[in-house]
Amino acid sequence: MSRTAAVFAPFLLLCLAVHALPFHSLNKSTLHHVPSKDLPFTEKYFTQILDHFNFNSMGNGTFRQRYLITDKYWKTGYGPIFFYTGNEGDIWDFALNSGFIIELAAQQGALVIFAEHRYYGKSLPFGEDSFHIPEVGLLTVEQALADYALMIQELKQELVALLCPVIVFGGSYGGMLSVYMRLKYPNVVAGALAASAPILSTAGLGDPRQFFRDVTADFQGCSAECRDSVRGAFAQLKELADNKDYSLVQQKFGLCATPSTPQDMHQLNGLLRNAFTLMAMLDYPYKTQFMSQLPANPVQVGCDTMMSGPDLLANLRNTAGIVYNSTGELACLDLYKLFVECADPTGCGLGPNSLAWDYQACTEIDLCFESNNVTDMFPPMIFTENQRQDYCSRRWGVIPRPGWLQLNFWGEALSTASNIIFSNGDLDPWANGGVRKSLSPSLVAINIAGGAHHLDLRGSNVADPGSVTQARKMESQLIAEWVKTERRRLKQGHTLYNKS
Amino acid sequence: MSRTAAVFAPFLLLCLAVHALPFHSLNKSTLHHVPSKDLPFTEKYFTQILDHFNFNSMGNGTFRQRYLITDKYWKTGYGPIFFYTGNEGDIWDFALNSGFIIELAAQQGALVIFAEHRYYGKSLPFGEDSFHIPEVGLLTVEQALADYALMIQELKQELVALLCPVIVFGGSYGGMLSVYMRLKYPNVVAGALAASAPILSTAGLGDPRQFFRDVTADFQGCSAECRDSVRGAFAQLKELADNKDYSLVQQKFGLCATPSTPQDMHQLNGLLRNAFTLMAMLDYPYKTQFMSQLPANPVQVGCDTMMSGPDLLANLRNTAGIVYNSTGELACLDLYKLFVECADPTGCGLGPNSLAWDYQACTEIDLCFESNNVTDMFPPMIFTENQRQDYCSRRWGVIPRPGWLQLNFWGEALSTASNIIFSNGDLDPWANGGVRKSLSPSLVAINIAGGAHHLDLRGSNVADPGSVTQARKMESQLIAEWVKTERRRLKQGHTLYNKS
Repeated sequence: MSRTAAVFAPFLLLCLAVHALPFHSLNKSTLHHVPSKDLPFTEKYFTQILDHFNFNSMGNGTFRQRYLITDKYWKTGYGPIFFYTGNEGDIWDFALNSGFIIELAAQQGALVIFAEHRYYGKSLPFGEDSFHIPEVGLLTVEQALADYALMIQELKQELVALLCPVIVFGGSYGGMLSVYMRLKYPNVVAGALAASAPILSTAGLGDPRQFFRDVTADFQGCSAECRDSVRGAFAQLKELADNKDYSLVQQKFGLCATPSTPQDMHQLNGLLRNAFTLMAMLDYPYKTQFMSQLPANPVQVGCDTMMSGPDLLANLRNTAGIVYNSTGELACLDLYKLFVECADPTGCGLGPNSLAWDYQACTEIDLCFESNNVTDMFPPMIFTENQRQDYCSRRWGVIPRPGWLQLNFWGEALSTASNIIFSNGDLDPWANGGVRKSLSPSLVAINIAGGAHHLDLRGSNVADPGSVTQARKMESQLIAEWVKTERRRLKQGHTLYNKS
Repeated sequence: MSRTAAVFAPFLLLCLAVHALPFHSLNKSTLHHVPSKDLPFTEKYFTQILDHFNFNSMGNGTFRQRYLITDKYWKTGYGPIFFYTGNEGDIWDFALNSGFIIELAAQQGALVIFAEHRYYGKSLPFGEDSFHIPEVGLLTVEQALADYALMIQELKQELVALLCPVIVFGGSYGGMLSVYMRLKYPNVVAGALAASAPILSTAGLGDPRQFFRDVTADFQGCSAECRDSVRGAFAQLKELADNKDYSLVQQKFGLCATPSTPQDMHQLNGLLRNAFTLMAMLDYPYKTQFMSQLPANPVQVGCDTMMSGPDLLANLRNTAGIVYNSTGELACLDLYKLFVECADPTGCGLGPNSLAWDYQACTEIDLCFESNNVTDMFPPMIFTENQRQDYCSRRWGVIPRPGWLQLNFWGEALSTASNIIFSNGDLDPWANGGVRKSLSPSLVAINIAGGAHHLDLRGSNVADPGSVTQARKMESQLIAEWVKTERRRLKQGHTLYNKS
């Protein structure tokens, strides 16, 4: 395929590697992997066990797992430990976008730790070989949880903090990990704030059409016309594709190369759909730099753009530009560089982190979501378990186990759990893949009206809707209660045996 | 070392491979690996995933896992499923010695399944190579639990039993697995009867002197003189060893070969101590064939023998004969054939099952128990974490992780759990390594006065003490309640999402 640099007028300018991201992070390398001076964290490394589940696979091999820590607010040896269960990206990105945890630590005198997930950021167990087979095989949810359990246990000893209750925090997949920590290691963590954690949909529970239906609902929420414009634009694009009018497609979308196959058109559709996904997920009421560089209220901006003139294809191109070319730096759109199709139809991002996420979506995390142009406004793009299996066995030599996450992490059979907050924003397409109903006084669902993807974890902002301020207040109260109860338990010491 | 066949007079006669067993089974091959006609079980095999925790280690390799099943008592499609979480031995041995489960199934209309633990009996993932390195690496508690979870899930589907509550049962290490199943997979199992499950001591919690202290207490319970005779006999043996009077040792103990080194004497002490361990554990009020062929009330028989004449060494030899030569068939005692020292100071048994258990004691199960001749009546035989590490890295190329079991399976931090019965008999030296106090109305400790190792799991016997009859009644009631509650939950169906 020739890569002619078509002029790419209306897109304005800045970062080349802007992200075709998913529900998880991208390779945000150009955005903020440099520690911020505003944050009090020290970057450290923990000597972590390579394989918690096989004593003979790696001897007792270890790797260096990165974590960020601050005791700036800690009531030393007494205050709780707030532990962020890092997800699929550079840990600094989560620290930089979870200001609420810092605010809460200041309030409650907590030590704060952000732990990086193995195989992401700088926590690569085998360095450059981490994504080779079989080295990649140690990338599992179970290993990540065991990492966190062990890290918490050892850091508590090191910091003389054995009596300090631990609360875990996480957003998105990180929120799933927080839930799982409380399910599987309640001896280690007293409670979990799981923000926007789609624990049901990623376990294959629910409706595969839900995700893109809810992305659509966000744009429809602006206006039915907005949704219809998007649908109309995709229909026009389909017509061009059906007619093999590829030069016009290139011209209309400012592509760097002329598309020449149905696969190229499929790629373009994927890239475009992904722009809407990101605007919906990240529909914050102020400008953000998380996963992408986005204006305030991107869905509104997107709808304004979609309805800015009679040429629907131009509108669609410009709407995609909000995500892929926010700074206007790109002279043209490189279909295969800006978006990489993978086992996650909501996107895997770019760079090494995207490899890790692709692997996880190929093994435990089940993301067989579809758009179909009936329950959503996008072109029909199906992703079945069979397609997933074909792709994953070719790409990684693995066979996904669709039922495993539900079996191992309880699916919706959560009634025996306790001390978990499931917070979700109603703008977030991930929300309905999570827990929306409280199950007991200590399994609390919080719904944030007008909230996007884990808005509550972000630092306070004047533009915040009242709902998120209210949510954070409730979270703060519940966490304070859990800390109090756990402190009593920890103080009791041994209750079942006597070290005679 | 020459192996002269010394005459071994007072020992009477039968099975050559009688067992130097531990808290778990031996290679009971000569006892009862043939399915009993009295039991209604069918022997089947389940296609099990080899490695639940690494998608790249074995592809999606599988192995054949054996299980026994009977629907003789099942209210088809409605009655509960009683699932025995097999431990370290041939699954038939547990089925043959857990008559209570059958009785309860008849009472409550249950389907009964006895599942064999991977790497034991006929469930060898790699056949004859199973105990090679690295093949043995897939022998972990976590893999075993995942096996059971998956097996339950799939058999429920196959048997059209999705609405049938599952209760797990286990004795000793099998009881630990039952507890862990309820901790880690409460979505799969509604409750656990954990009989004589030393979940604390095997996690390194408590006193390493407890075990042999409590073996001693059993013999002291007969009489202080009995205990003193044992101690006196070991003292005389030590004198002979100190004087290197090895021929006399051989003659006194009817050994097949003359001992010639301190190591041989250490081996003899280990073998003798183990006889007392087995009599204490298996101090049932009637003749049994579990782990060893023993008379009714073996502790009493042992004490009678220890005090049967003025020659303490002869008494000690004859007492050991109760365990090692109950049938009198052995012409002499082969020190290294009747007892194999391993990473479990209470014994690993003989044969392939003993290899598997040695590996488990070298990795997750922490059995650093000591005798010291102060808090117990035995020769000082220390087994430190350092010794364990040396042995295990030499033998299996592994480094034990002493803290892991406590971290992963909660140690004594059990307050968030529910629906577990911890039953223990006060004659059982394992009892004080388990949970002896109820923690809540659904975490119930049952103490069985006059009960040995998981007596309650055995079928009813006229010689049963009233305490065990009472215990079984309480167990039956609790289990019936759990089943009722779980049935309601299962009937509710999906509560958190709509498959629209």
